[in-house]
Amino acid sequence: MTKHDCIFCKIAAGEIPSVTVYEDEAVRAILDLAPANPGHTLVLPKEHFDDSLEMPEEILGHAMAVGARIGRAQMEALDYEGFHLLQNNREAAGQSVFHFHLHVIPRRKEDGAMGLWKPGHPGSEELAETGEKLQTALSI
Amino acid sequence: MTKHDCIFCKIAAGEIPSVTVYEDEAVRAILDLAPANPGHTLVLPKEHFDDSLEMPEEILGHAMAVGARIGRAQMEALDYEGFHLLQNNREAAGQSVFHFHLHVIPRRKEDGAMGLWKPGHPGSEELAETGEKLQTALSI
Repeated sequence: MTKHDCIFCKIAAGEIPSVTVYEDEAVRAILDLAPANPGHTLVLPKEHFDDSLEMPEEILGHAMAVGARIGRAQMEALDYEGFHLLQNNREAAGQSVFHFHLHVIPRRKEDGAMGLWKPGHPGSEELAETGEKLQTALSI
Repeated sequence: MTKHDCIFCKIAAGEIPSVTVYEDEAVRAILDLAPANPGHTLVLPKEHFDDSLEMPEEILGHAMAVGARIGRAQMEALDYEGFHLLQNNREAAGQSVFHFHLHVIPRRKEDGAMGLWKPGHPGSEELAETGEKLQTALSI
């Protein structure tokens, strides 16, 4: 199912033009117009899902496998040394279009193209307590 | 297959202790000891794969589906508003253990826990040229 007011549904269906680097029955991969690095690609399922929470395992796996193939192509064709597969869920995590999209972000060593995080140093007691809360939520 | 000198193989097999929040036949999910935010979790396949390029679609999908469930648990049990699913490939992309691991990074609005990227502004000619190179590499 597509969603009539969703721009990524229209792009995935080819109704809005994009620079498409890969397409099959289930997904379309397009260049991001505001890339972290040249070649930054988005993998869009053709069916509409708001985010990963809505998506079946099979399509999640296919999007990731296509993402890995694109990452390899970025390294080979554009001379990169690695890549991130990143998928943001909800506005607080930087999601701005609410149609699942997997970012394939190519990287060279120390290119500064993406920040990642400053590691925290929780104590073992804090870790155990956090772990118990998650275990409980996941066992329900 | 596991790899005898791989620390994540040993953790996934339960030979090295961890704060495990979820486990099934194919994966183990553990708290990251140097988290971006409390509750930051890693999903490890029990079988050894260096990175996403080596991993079958089925296990990629399972790791992502488990990651999404953990993201939901982070929001519900730890009061977060969103989460990233992030998987780094190769040293240039910040990978430091060469056993596939999916980061599930919980976020609150403007918590500054992760940097992401400064968007570039390529022209349409540059986009088309980059796209052609990737298309060619992907069609081989």
